[in-house]
Amino acid sequence: MKVIDGSITAPQGFMAQGACAEIKKKNKMDVGIIYSTNKSQAAGVYTTNIVRAACIDICKKNLADGTAQAIVVNSGNANACTGEQGRHDALEMTKATAQILGIDPQDVLVASTGVIGEFLPMKNILVGIDAAAHNLSESGAENVAAAIMTTDLFPKEVAVEFEIDSCPVRIGAIAKGSGMIHPNMATLLGFITTDADIDSACLSACLQESVNRSYNMISVDRDTSTNDAVLILANAQAGNNKIDYSNPEGLAKFQKALDFVNIKLAKMIARDGEGANHLIEVQVVNAEDVEKARKIARSVISSNLVKAAVFGGDANWGRIICAMGYSGAEFDQNKVDIYLGEVKVAQDGCRYDFSEELAHNELLNENIIIKIDLNAGEHKATAWGCDLSYDYVKINADYRS
Amino acid sequence: MKVIDGSITAPQGFMAQGACAEIKKKNKMDVGIIYSTNKSQAAGVYTTNIVRAACIDICKKNLADGTAQAIVVNSGNANACTGEQGRHDALEMTKATAQILGIDPQDVLVASTGVIGEFLPMKNILVGIDAAAHNLSESGAENVAAAIMTTDLFPKEVAVEFEIDSCPVRIGAIAKGSGMIHPNMATLLGFITTDADIDSACLSACLQESVNRSYNMISVDRDTSTNDAVLILANAQAGNNKIDYSNPEGLAKFQKALDFVNIKLAKMIARDGEGANHLIEVQVVNAEDVEKARKIARSVISSNLVKAAVFGGDANWGRIICAMGYSGAEFDQNKVDIYLGEVKVAQDGCRYDFSEELAHNELLNENIIIKIDLNAGEHKATAWGCDLSYDYVKINADYRS
Repeated sequence: MKVIDGSITAPQGFMAQGACAEIKKKNKMDVGIIYSTNKSQAAGVYTTNIVRAACIDICKKNLADGTAQAIVVNSGNANACTGEQGRHDALEMTKATAQILGIDPQDVLVASTGVIGEFLPMKNILVGIDAAAHNLSESGAENVAAAIMTTDLFPKEVAVEFEIDSCPVRIGAIAKGSGMIHPNMATLLGFITTDADIDSACLSACLQESVNRSYNMISVDRDTSTNDAVLILANAQAGNNKIDYSNPEGLAKFQKALDFVNIKLAKMIARDGEGANHLIEVQVVNAEDVEKARKIARSVISSNLVKAAVFGGDANWGRIICAMGYSGAEFDQNKVDIYLGEVKVAQDGCRYDFSEELAHNELLNENIIIKIDLNAGEHKATAWGCDLSYDYVKINADYRS
Repeated sequence: MKVIDGSITAPQGFMAQGACAEIKKKNKMDVGIIYSTNKSQAAGVYTTNIVRAACIDICKKNLADGTAQAIVVNSGNANACTGEQGRHDALEMTKATAQILGIDPQDVLVASTGVIGEFLPMKNILVGIDAAAHNLSESGAENVAAAIMTTDLFPKEVAVEFEIDSCPVRIGAIAKGSGMIHPNMATLLGFITTDADIDSACLSACLQESVNRSYNMISVDRDTSTNDAVLILANAQAGNNKIDYSNPEGLAKFQKALDFVNIKLAKMIARDGEGANHLIEVQVVNAEDVEKARKIARSVISSNLVKAAVFGGDANWGRIICAMGYSGAEFDQNKVDIYLGEVKVAQDGCRYDFSEELAHNELLNENIIIKIDLNAGEHKATAWGCDLSYDYVKINADYRS
């Protein structure tokens, strides 16, 4: 597998384009369309928040047959908590896109991100859809990556190429996050394209597993926004031997590539957390099972106190073990070893005689690794996040203005 | 029921004292003792964090018989994650206190709060215990209230008097909190004294219910520190007709007074959250059941985004309904009305046509009420918290130094 240039238009048969519809600010991309030249296998993973935008329900309905051909998205307005009008507007987005592209509205998926509780400025939206749909091209991917940004500081794109039975296959993706990296803090959107020929059920299962290992490890499951969605289109144009459950080797290769792409984007999202100065990686190793390792890693990465301590360069490992303790996972505290980078700070659940200076130095790195060894089994999990800074508060104190 | 001066020594037969043992800084109270002149009925509610300090286990053990006579506490060091040495030191605190007071060490309860993972400076602790125990007095309560403070800006004391069958009975209490008001963010300690004559099982049940309505409503259940504890001593010196399950009227009066005391302290803790400028009260009304109302209230009060919006004076009600949605409680989003103070901002789950200026003005008040009407039943719950400010980050970025 190798990383290649580009993102969602790197796989064969995909085109994309963004447009400035003045939903956000003047001259900012805020509408985007992703299009496959043929109808594709498709799957989605969505927010579990019971307050959800109409676009989520429309995606679920349109994906009931496991196929789709285009995605339309806007930023600047989440179209959530907007009732019947909101549902009508989201459907209008799929219809307008379908009409220009000459496809069935039910093959168009829709996503929105931004402020909750305001109606979409449909006139602007439709102008944006018109502009994007009429200018689709293989070079339009970066405009869509820009069009989905809200408080993100940089666009997030990645693409890889790998082989299935000697046939080159590509996966490309874009994402947006920010908001202190909790999806509850802002919408997380991920759009993935691939030219792989893959069975619909396999595609769906691979996506869910990959989301568990990536985007769900920069969040706490129950903390989800009204609009979170990760969508994938697989158009089979690579012409590989079909990936399905009778082809475990191919399936494993696809899963590995998909995980790489999603983890790469998840880490970019974490690093770009609002006000962040550091990417924090929490590695939980030697756990009894994966679920336990994930719970502990997520609990530590979600702790405001751990985040603030990293911001302050304070090797306060007590906050780490405290966050482990309320994670909901059982473990033997007397077996826990904790490392900040190379520096062991706790052993057998107690303070280890470490150099405060060396530990402080580890916290000055841009990328900080907190390693937690449970000494209880062979399973592991990794979670990613960022520090909590003054700027996080500043950004969120007056987000709407 | 009336509020009276003082706190833990307001009920008959209680004495208290604090001491400066230089565990925190020079000339700061950091050791305290609370003492009843007779052996008392006693009960406790503790952290659910599986990483917990030895003092929690010692309290549980010493309260197995439902009685105690004294409480010894220190701030500046939590004596958590300190292994066998920590257990030994916590026992030493009970023994030293018991010896001076001439009581059984098993009748002494112990609590600690402060940094995790450092051994207690036992020499200082013992000097502090000696000074406090030899100077117990009815006027020492405020010194103990000061001795349990960590980043708290002001001590928290309250006392009330009420009548059981025409006999005056008193309850007094002190507490400490801070740490952005989540008990996971810092230890929550509460110490309550009463001269009521009350059955041991009733006392325990009343305390648990009262904690559910007060301290647990400024927190999320799973987010607990290593040292949280609320302890109560009831020494029966008021001479009232015994409160037990055969005396429902007396029991209800006691519960009401205990709730008043604990809610008063809980609100003080919320207002004194690190860096806080506002006390936020979230009222959930017309819920199908109490548990649902509590879950939703706690979820909203715990949202960093809601807290930051209040700090910024931004009437961003979408963040409120979003936090409701991931609370884990089921509700009909189309029936939800939301008010900021007097201003209705959402109706039937959608934006209500409100004046941004009036809503902004509501958020300038020191005390802010967010009312959520579920229009689904007759139950309610209230939660308290504070805004998220720059100062919260500042305080927590370098807590240890």
